[in-house]
Amino acid sequence: MSLLVMKFGGTSVGSPERIRAVAARVARAVADGHQCAVIVSAMGHTTDELVGLAAEIAEQPDRREMDALLATGEQIATALVAMALHETGVKAASFTGWQAGIQTEPVHGAARIEAIDASALVSSLHQNVVPVIAGFQGIAQGAVTTLGRGGSDTTAVAVAAALRADRCEIYTDVNGVYTADPRLVQNARKLMEISYEEMLELANLGSQVLHPRAVETAKRNGVALVVRSSFSNEEGTVIRDMATMERLRIVTGVACEKEVARVALLGMTVSHHHLADIFSALAQASVNVDVIVQSVVKTGETDVSFTVSEGDVARAVDICEEFATRLGCQEVKQETGLSKISIVGAGMISNPGVAAHMFQALAAAQADIKMVSTSEIKVSCIIAADSLDAAVQSVHDAFSLAE
Amino acid sequence: MSLLVMKFGGTSVGSPERIRAVAARVARAVADGHQCAVIVSAMGHTTDELVGLAAEIAEQPDRREMDALLATGEQIATALVAMALHETGVKAASFTGWQAGIQTEPVHGAARIEAIDASALVSSLHQNVVPVIAGFQGIAQGAVTTLGRGGSDTTAVAVAAALRADRCEIYTDVNGVYTADPRLVQNARKLMEISYEEMLELANLGSQVLHPRAVETAKRNGVALVVRSSFSNEEGTVIRDMATMERLRIVTGVACEKEVARVALLGMTVSHHHLADIFSALAQASVNVDVIVQSVVKTGETDVSFTVSEGDVARAVDICEEFATRLGCQEVKQETGLSKISIVGAGMISNPGVAAHMFQALAAAQADIKMVSTSEIKVSCIIAADSLDAAVQSVHDAFSLAE
Repeated sequence: MSLLVMKFGGTSVGSPERIRAVAARVARAVADGHQCAVIVSAMGHTTDELVGLAAEIAEQPDRREMDALLATGEQIATALVAMALHETGVKAASFTGWQAGIQTEPVHGAARIEAIDASALVSSLHQNVVPVIAGFQGIAQGAVTTLGRGGSDTTAVAVAAALRADRCEIYTDVNGVYTADPRLVQNARKLMEISYEEMLELANLGSQVLHPRAVETAKRNGVALVVRSSFSNEEGTVIRDMATMERLRIVTGVACEKEVARVALLGMTVSHHHLADIFSALAQASVNVDVIVQSVVKTGETDVSFTVSEGDVARAVDICEEFATRLGCQEVKQETGLSKISIVGAGMISNPGVAAHMFQALAAAQADIKMVSTSEIKVSCIIAADSLDAAVQSVHDAFSLAE
Repeated sequence: MSLLVMKFGGTSVGSPERIRAVAARVARAVADGHQCAVIVSAMGHTTDELVGLAAEIAEQPDRREMDALLATGEQIATALVAMALHETGVKAASFTGWQAGIQTEPVHGAARIEAIDASALVSSLHQNVVPVIAGFQGIAQGAVTTLGRGGSDTTAVAVAAALRADRCEIYTDVNGVYTADPRLVQNARKLMEISYEEMLELANLGSQVLHPRAVETAKRNGVALVVRSSFSNEEGTVIRDMATMERLRIVTGVACEKEVARVALLGMTVSHHHLADIFSALAQASVNVDVIVQSVVKTGETDVSFTVSEGDVARAVDICEEFATRLGCQEVKQETGLSKISIVGAGMISNPGVAAHMFQALAAAQADIKMVSTSEIKVSCIIAADSLDAAVQSVHDAFSLAE
């Protein structure tokens, strides 16, 4: 008998019918002799509806109250899933974040889990009552908090760690982690396994399967993660420690991100503080900066460019222009209509020439490379959005990922 | 400075616009120098929607989960009202039942409040943060419970008692308590004050203004209750102890109830146990029996008839027929299409002839009286539903209630 933590996302519990399907799946796992703990997100559009209600009341709703409001979405889903489990003959009980003992830092909207007092969950499991736990929420100083983006995945991993579960299964609307987005690359292949490190890069690179926070938490606690579909019985992708993997692929997958914009500060006077000043100001304005490239043009002068999402570009340019005079910057330029394409692979560390091979594949697809950024297990290139589809296919082929 | 508990029902918080109006009213009370604690029900149709969702999952949803589900309705409303208060510049914080320290008996669906640990509410008031508390819910043994019908009114009164509030204002969609339903009787008059005892009879008799549980709790704890409209500034009706009232009216008001059905067991053998057996069986099947009349027809034989709501009549007849043979009962009859008309007045105790005066008024309205039931401060008659409107007006006139 093993202990499984099963997490179902908003699409998986999007209707009463789907909730019954979730219950049937959990009931099968119980019938197979597993102990199960279930984590659920809010039903499909519930969160959007609640956000809409709040927006009708206040332009900037109080953050404590926003958390109290949003937390009800997951609570509704847990109660319904527990009811559906009862219908299948499996004993179950819903748990809100506070009932499950999920303590977070006292921050609203994006709290981190600090500790889980799993005693109520353990006692439920001992009584053969499946705990159905609200994802995305916790409690801090008596107030309801929410974990922000990727919160429900993170709840699942943290609960799996606290219960010392044998594995944590993330049920979603895809069959697993692919070598590329199957909507872009027809012969994309599902991976049987992938390392935490690769998954982190992929998650950060816009592969929407699993939130990086959840992957990080799993890596830190050694939780074996599985990503699989809630709509089929197909085996999913196992995410585990690099050290335990049989073979490290040079390139595991191709990820891409759309609606990328570039901001460039041209002819800036070189100084120790300039970069820190600009990027601190951007961070304070919650502008998420991705790739940063700096080059020295001539002595004492430098060009800096960075990418942000298209939604943030206007704000980013405003901030840069405020700094322009003070930085001796001659021009602030922006460019939209860009995409990012990245390859990720743990085997890259020990294989030179991978980046060059990627650049060739991009050239073959007539994609001009505008910026490059690399890490030990990743190469990212910024290219024009209209060349993305051909680029992804070309890179996927170049590294023989379909085989 | 006085401490007010203000309770707003589902209609009063039925839309973002109305929630803003509620916040404006609370803000005015705060500006007038009052300390305020607010109790809210779920927004308009929220509860029905949640019940509908549960019905799609299970025919008989698990009661613990049903409570967990329904409690979210009030939580949503508290968060939105607190946000709206922030917008008016008044500090506020939402409280679920458990956050407010509302402990109930460990029963789901219709729990009674056992105790309120008001320390969190008191501390909030001390910090000038208006607590906005979810009505209708509490906690028992770590699980969310709901109070059942009339629960939010009861929460308001219990919180007022725990906080030793100066008064508890129940905001609703009517201006107060009337001498009769203004939709039935054009010259019905709003009462300035009424005793707990009269209000209890009126509440039980189908005057939908205030739930009897709330009135009982107020009477027991000496909480001064006010019923008033959330849509106007008109003064409402004060409900207080009979002993403190200046003048006891013989008849305070006329109440009526529709969709009443009568079940009759005819020619039953007289026995000590028969009545207990039948009515225990009905109670176990949750059939709410109202008026009971028994008469001896001839030696050793008796007729028993009782009223139930029309929705319960089929179940009641089934149960009676199961007992019929064993009780030597010759016939079980039912009659639907009935109404109940009642007069209530604390002064009745010391005034004979009130019932007779009512019977005359009913005769004048050509309403045949099918059953009569009396208490110290009430006379109820069962009449045909089609004679109700004329009967209410005639009785209202007969006792000069419009003056």
